[in-house]
Amino acid sequence: MTSTTAPVDASTTNRTVRLASRPTGEPSAENFRIADEPLPTPGDGEVLLRTIYLSLDPYMRGRMSDAESYAAPVPVDGVMEGGTVCEVVESRSEALEPGDIVLAYGGWQTYVVAPANQVRRLDPTRAPISTAVGVLGMPGFTAYAGLLEIGKPQAGETVVVAAASGPVGSAVGQIAMVKGARAVGIAGGPEKCAHVKDELGFDAVIDHRDPEFKAKLKEATPDGIDVYFENVGGKVFDAVLPRMNTYGRIPLCGLVSQYNLTRLPDGPNRVPSVMQRILTKSLTVRGFIQNEFVKAHYKQFQADMAQWIADGAVRYREDVVEGLDNAPEAFLGMLRGTNFGKLVIQVGADPTQSA
Amino acid sequence: MTSTTAPVDASTTNRTVRLASRPTGEPSAENFRIADEPLPTPGDGEVLLRTIYLSLDPYMRGRMSDAESYAAPVPVDGVMEGGTVCEVVESRSEALEPGDIVLAYGGWQTYVVAPANQVRRLDPTRAPISTAVGVLGMPGFTAYAGLLEIGKPQAGETVVVAAASGPVGSAVGQIAMVKGARAVGIAGGPEKCAHVKDELGFDAVIDHRDPEFKAKLKEATPDGIDVYFENVGGKVFDAVLPRMNTYGRIPLCGLVSQYNLTRLPDGPNRVPSVMQRILTKSLTVRGFIQNEFVKAHYKQFQADMAQWIADGAVRYREDVVEGLDNAPEAFLGMLRGTNFGKLVIQVGADPTQSA
Repeated sequence: MTSTTAPVDASTTNRTVRLASRPTGEPSAENFRIADEPLPTPGDGEVLLRTIYLSLDPYMRGRMSDAESYAAPVPVDGVMEGGTVCEVVESRSEALEPGDIVLAYGGWQTYVVAPANQVRRLDPTRAPISTAVGVLGMPGFTAYAGLLEIGKPQAGETVVVAAASGPVGSAVGQIAMVKGARAVGIAGGPEKCAHVKDELGFDAVIDHRDPEFKAKLKEATPDGIDVYFENVGGKVFDAVLPRMNTYGRIPLCGLVSQYNLTRLPDGPNRVPSVMQRILTKSLTVRGFIQNEFVKAHYKQFQADMAQWIADGAVRYREDVVEGLDNAPEAFLGMLRGTNFGKLVIQVGADPTQSA
Repeated sequence: MTSTTAPVDASTTNRTVRLASRPTGEPSAENFRIADEPLPTPGDGEVLLRTIYLSLDPYMRGRMSDAESYAAPVPVDGVMEGGTVCEVVESRSEALEPGDIVLAYGGWQTYVVAPANQVRRLDPTRAPISTAVGVLGMPGFTAYAGLLEIGKPQAGETVVVAAASGPVGSAVGQIAMVKGARAVGIAGGPEKCAHVKDELGFDAVIDHRDPEFKAKLKEATPDGIDVYFENVGGKVFDAVLPRMNTYGRIPLCGLVSQYNLTRLPDGPNRVPSVMQRILTKSLTVRGFIQNEFVKAHYKQFQADMAQWIADGAVRYREDVVEGLDNAPEAFLGMLRGTNFGKLVIQVGADPTQSA
C-alpha cells in the first residue's frame, strides 16, 4: 500500500482507496493505492455523501479480478466498491436533506456523489446505523434468503454452516434455530468457536483446524445433515458432502477458501464423486446472489430480523476498524480469517453515537 | 456368461439371470449366470406372472455394485432386478385373473411370484404393452418429472439433453418442445443424430464424438443453455457447464459415463471450478430419482404423455432384443451405447400382438 501520510483537509478532500493492480492469488497491500482528490460536486437530483461506515465483504475479492463473474470487475485505478453508511452533506434532491443518514454503495472513499434515488434513508432510532451493512443489511439478508428460500430448514432438521462466527454464518445458524432446526457451526480457532457456542447458542460447533475435524463433524451430526449453507468450499465441503441426507439442500453463496486459487488443485478430479453424491442422495445445490431475492423478501427480512434482534434470538458481533487507510490491511486479514465478526471500517465520525 | 443351452420345459421351469459376481469397472458376461429352477407357487393374495418384456436400464449397473446408493444392491447370486410387463398365469387374489397384463418389478427371469397389490394392471388397448416400461413408464416419467418439476423450461429457453436418442433423452427434448423451448440433443454417431434431428424433430443435434464437439455445442446454443438435463456426466458436462445461463437448472438423473469408473480420474481437481460456476451463475443442480415424484405427478404424466403420443408430439423408438439369455449381452451393449432406442428384452410371447 502506498501510504499517503501528508495531512489533508478532510472537509475539502476526498480520500479514495483504488485498485492499483489485479492480484494473482492472495492479494497484498500493493494491489491497493490511496489517492486524494477534490470533493466531487453533486448535480441535479444528486447528493454529496460523507462515509461513516464502509462494509468489507469477501465478494470484493471477486471484484479485484477480471475473471467472468456475476458483476463487472473494478477497473484498475478505479475506486474499490463497497456498501457504505453515509451522512448527507449536501443535497440537490428534495428527497434528502443534510444530516440524513443513508445506505449507499459508495465504495472505499471518504465522500461520494450519488443519485438521491439510489440511496436508502435509514432510521437511526431503529438500530445502530452500522447494522445496515451487517445483520440488517446485505450479509443478514444473504443468510435469511439463502437459508429460508433455498435451504428451507424444517423443525428438527440439522443445519450446518461454515464461517459461523462471521456475519452470514452467525445469522444462518441463529435463524435456523428460530425455525426449530439444530444449528451446527464450523469456525476457525477456539475463540471463535466459543463465541458461536456460548454467545450465539449454536447446538454444536467444530473447529475446522482440528485434526479430528471429520470425526467431530460426524459426532456433531448424528442424524446427518439436511441443509449445508455453503460459503467457504474446499475441505469443509468435502467433509460435509458425505453426511448430507437424502433431499438435502446446499445454498451456495460464497467460496472464500478458493478465491485466491491461481490454478485448480492437484488431482484426482473429484467432480464425478460430487455428482454421484448429488444424484444418489437427491441433493439440491443452488448458487445464489442475494439480489435475486430482494424484491420478494427484503421487506419481510427487515421486519423479521429486527424482531429477532429485539427478542435476543439473533445476536451479532461487529469488528470495527478505524480509518479508511486501514481498509486494505483489514480486508486482507478477513480473507485469511483473522477478523472476528462483521468487518466494518469506521471511515468518519458517527453522529448517532453520543460520545 | 455361463450359457445354459439344454432344452427346458418353459411351462414348468423358471429361467433366471443372476448376479454371479460384482464387476470391477466395466461389467462383463462373466458377472452374470443363468440358472433354471422350478416354477414358484403363489401364496394367498399373490399371483404367478409370466414375463413378456423385461426393461434394461442404466441404473441396473448401480445395483450390481455394493457402493452406497439410493437402493440396496442385488445380492451376489440374486436374480437381477428390473421392471417387467407380465401376463398373469395363476391368481390367488380377487384383484387379478389369468390373462391380465400387468406391470411388475419382476426381474431378469421368465416367471415371478408377486403380491397382487404390488403390480399394476395395464390396458392393452391403450398402447403397446411394452411402452409401460418405456415412454409411458419409468423412463418417460423420469424425463417428464425431471424436466417439468426441476428443469421448468420456459417458452423460448434452450434445453440441452445428452443420450438424446435414448428413452429418457428423447422424451426430454420432445416435452421441452411441447413447452415451447428449443431442444438441443447430444448423441453418439451419425445414425442416432439423424434420428434425433429428423425423426424426433429436435431443433439441433450434436455428435459427442465430433472432434469439434465444444465448438458445435456453442454454435447450437447461441443464447446459452437454460436447462441441461444431465444423464451422462463427464466430458459432456464439462462442455455444457460454461454455457449455462444465469438461473440455469440442471436436473441430474444419471451419470452413465462414470458408472464403470474404478477410481477418480486424474487431476486437476475440477470441483472448485464447478462450484464457482454454480455460484456465479446462480445455477441449480438437483439430483433425483423418479420415485420422488410418483405420488404427485404420475397420473398427470400418463394422461399428458398418452395425449402427446396420440398427437404425434412425442415419438419413441424401442430396441427389442429376443430372449432372456441375451439380456446380459444387450445390457453390456447399452452401457457402451451400442443400443438405439429403449432397450427391452422380449422374454416371452406377447399375446396382445396379433401375428
